[in-house]
This record gives sequence, C-alpha cells and structure tokens, in this order.
Amino acid sequence: MTQRLFEVESVQASRRVRASDYLAVEEPLAIRITHGPANARQRETISITMRTPGQDADLAAGFLFAEGVIHSPDQILAIEPSQSESAVRVEIHPEVQIDFARLDRRGLTTSSCGVCGKTSLEAIEAVCEDPRAGGSVPASMIHELPARLRTAQPAFSQTGGLHAAALFDLRGTLLAVREDVGRHNAVDKLIGAEFRAGRVPLHDRILLVSGRASFELIQKAAMAAVPVFAAIGAPSSLAVSLAERLGLTLLGFVRDGRFNIYSGAERIA
Amino acid sequence: MTQRLFEVESVQASRRVRASDYLAVEEPLAIRITHGPANARQRETISITMRTPGQDADLAAGFLFAEGVIHSPDQILAIEPSQSESAVRVEIHPEVQIDFARLDRRGLTTSSCGVCGKTSLEAIEAVCEDPRAGGSVPASMIHELPARLRTAQPAFSQTGGLHAAALFDLRGTLLAVREDVGRHNAVDKLIGAEFRAGRVPLHDRILLVSGRASFELIQKAAMAAVPVFAAIGAPSSLAVSLAERLGLTLLGFVRDGRFNIYSGAERIA
Repeated sequence: MTQRLFEVESVQASRRVRASDYLAVEEPLAIRITHGPANARQRETISITMRTPGQDADLAAGFLFAEGVIHSPDQILAIEPSQSESAVRVEIHPEVQIDFARLDRRGLTTSSCGVCGKTSLEAIEAVCEDPRAGGSVPASMIHELPARLRTAQPAFSQTGGLHAAALFDLRGTLLAVREDVGRHNAVDKLIGAEFRAGRVPLHDRILLVSGRASFELIQKAAMAAVPVFAAIGAPSSLAVSLAERLGLTLLGFVRDGRFNIYSGAERIA
Repeated sequence: MTQRLFEVESVQASRRVRASDYLAVEEPLAIRITHGPANARQRETISITMRTPGQDADLAAGFLFAEGVIHSPDQILAIEPSQSESAVRVEIHPEVQIDFARLDRRGLTTSSCGVCGKTSLEAIEAVCEDPRAGGSVPASMIHELPARLRTAQPAFSQTGGLHAAALFDLRGTLLAVREDVGRHNAVDKLIGAEFRAGRVPLHDRILLVSGRASFELIQKAAMAAVPVFAAIGAPSSLAVSLAERLGLTLLGFVRDGRFNIYSGAERIA
C-alpha cells in the first residue's frame, strides 16, 4: 500500500472545509540477515529504514548489494518479507564474509547518510563496477525522460510525497519505476529488482530520480555500474565529485527542455 | 561554506554552452562523544552524517538532544568542531547515562530513518515534552510563513539543493533559519542552537520546513515540545499518526494561500 486516505481540514484563505487527502505511506522495515558458516549461523538486524511498503524483498536485496554485503544474487539463499514483523529476513550464503567493521563505521545516523570520507571513496572505487563503459545518449532523448517518468508515476501526483527512481535503456525506453517516501529506498528497490533478476551490472541503462542527487545515490548507481545518472533536481557538491572520480555521467535539473552536465559529458551526443 | 561554484555544460534543447553553477556543499561529519564516569571515560563515534558544513556544534547538540542522549545544555561540558577531522567532539557530563541499547536498535541505515515501530513510539511519548500546550495561531498568519522563509533563504535560490527549517514565534516573526542538504540536519541545527541557548522547550514556536514532513522530523519537533509543525510539502502517513498521538498540530502543503490541517486543528483560529 503506497498511499492512504486521511481526513483533513483544508484551509484556503480564510475558508475552511473538511476534505480528504491521499498521503504517502511511511512505515519502518527491519532488514535482518542470517549469515556465517554452516556450524555457526548468526542473526543480525542490519538496517531499520522508514519506507513505503511494497517490494520489500527488492529493497533488502538492493540495500545489501549497495552496501557491498552481497555481490551476486545466488548469495541470497532465501528472502522472506514478513508483514507482521515489519521485517525482511535474508538468508545469506555461508561462504559470504561480511565486513561488519566497515558497516559499523557508518554507525548511527539519521540523515541521508552514505559512506563517508576518503577511505570510503577508495573503497567504493575498489568494489564497484567500472561505470566508464556505456554508449552515448542524444541530448534530445534526455529531455524526454521526465515526462516518461511522470506518466508512470501515479502515486506522486496523488500524494505529492513520494520520490521516484526510474530505469531507462539507452534509447530512452522506460523499463521500471519505483516510488518510496525515501529516495534511497526507491533506488534500492529499483536496483534490487535488477540484481535479483541477474541483470546487474547495468551497463546500458540510465537512472533517473525525481529529486536531488546526493553522494549516496551516486554511490548506489556506481555499485550497479550505471553509466548515466540523471536528476530532476540539483546534485550536491559531493555527488559531482564522486561521479567525476568514477567516470559516471551526472546530469542535473533535467526539466523544462534543459539540463546541466556535471561530469562525463562525453556520453551526451 | 554552504555552496560552491562548479563548471558545467548547460544544454537547452540542442544548444550546449559552458556555464557555471552553484551547488550545495555536502560533506561527511562524524559526531564523536566522550562519556562515562570520571574514572572510566570512553570515546565513541555515535553518528556519521552527510551534511552541509556550518553550525556543526549546533547540529551535534541537536542530534544528541533529539536522540534522547542529553536533556539539558549543561550536560555538554565541551563541544569542539574540528574541520580537519570532519568531526565534532562532544564531551558529555560524567553523570549522563547513555542507553546504547536503544540507540543501537536504530542500527545501520541509509534512508531517512527515524525511530521505528510501536516500542519507540512509546519511548518518544515518555521522553518528549508535552506539545499539547501552545496558544492558537490565525490561519492568515500561516499563509505568510513560506514567503518569510524564502526571503531569509538565499542559498536555496542559488543552488536549488538545500532544505530549510525555520523557527517562528506565534505572531509569525521569523526567529532563525538553517539550511542543509539533509532536512534532518537543518532541523537538528535549528533546534540544537535553541537547546544550547537554554530556550528549549519551544512551547511558543512554529517550525516550518521547506519540504516534506516525515515521521522523524515530527519526532524531533516533539522532543523540543514545538506545538505547531508546518511543511511546504506533503506529510507522510506516519508523520500524521505521530502528530495525532502527541497532540501536535501538523500542517502540510502550506503554499499558494492554502494549507491542510492533518492534526491539532484546535490551534488554528
């Protein structure tokens, strides 16, 4: 359920009427993993995120992939969303070694926090697929992407409260859209579905987000080897630095027949 | 430094020109605490957040207060931002006992994650000041708040990439504005400054955010006993549930001479 109807009072100038309003649903989800060698399996809650319910298995898989916990879909032995527990249980292959020290560094955080600092930048570079590949894309096609996303994004127009992430091929064909109250979740759901289907690395894909481009979103795209990242909103300074460093094409303010190229201009024809 | 100039290529239709563009600065900040009894002091990194540099001491104080780690400004013995370490060191009074089990529950998360689930809702209710107090506010004044925020928010208009949080008194006078790439950080900086100055609880204040209202932002406002929370964007379902439960007035879509009242309608005259 991505949206729910609420009774509200709507105030216009000094007029006040009862009305109803669809709001984006936000609920907590715990991602719990079972991991470790066969004779010493362990359980751990690895993340609690506020998300819009739906595609929880994709969200969990996408999150674990973006964090570098798993690298291929066969490392997931089972993945079971449980509505009653507000959790997804992910059983991870006994041979997968998890670097909890690296995960722990990221610690307790409330912001849209990604990995941090130079050490982590190097870690991303080491781990992530090289996004320097990928063909070139005509500018005229980029201009059309936001309209294609909008037609496929019904809940936003009703709630005004959902972020969207969309995947296109290099000809601009819309392949998938995910919506969520958290923009990171929308990207995790989108990439997680591709990952589970064995379609990562996403060398011939464009990722479009409805809002801003943060460092962490670029990191997620880079892990999946997406060559072109387009944002309808503004990028942050660190998003641009990371995209430049990884050779990823970053486009911002993609709207109203214009956009800015912040890095990787050679892919835009 | 909240913004930085970048060289970009600007594409309009098929025209492509070199241009420069101000972007919101995003950089990691570690919040490190020293805590524990005098004979067994300990150091701990309690959060790493991606934030816009500036007011880092307020951000750290606001974060620790919102998390329930500290309850009064005199529990901070020293607070030292270190630019070179990308960190703020907070020395906490030896008598403060920190419930790390509660903090740990929130674990590793990349999303705009707040506290989660029913147990935590009860914890917030127990800890936070009662926001049921507070006078009433004329609707006509609410209509004027976004324009007052805009005039005081210069960086957004340049970068398009910053969230803002503003504090008003009940007559609509703007008292403070903070901007950040993370909306939680903007609220932490705003409330943190008030907390450090000894002005919390904020019984006679209105908090306005430039974007959407999530569960976690309502939680932060409630911890500071803010009676009226107004968002220019949409609230989430869980934001409304929490505001209802805590008796906080929640207004959404405050723009263009209208707004919706999601809870606490009795405070709007």
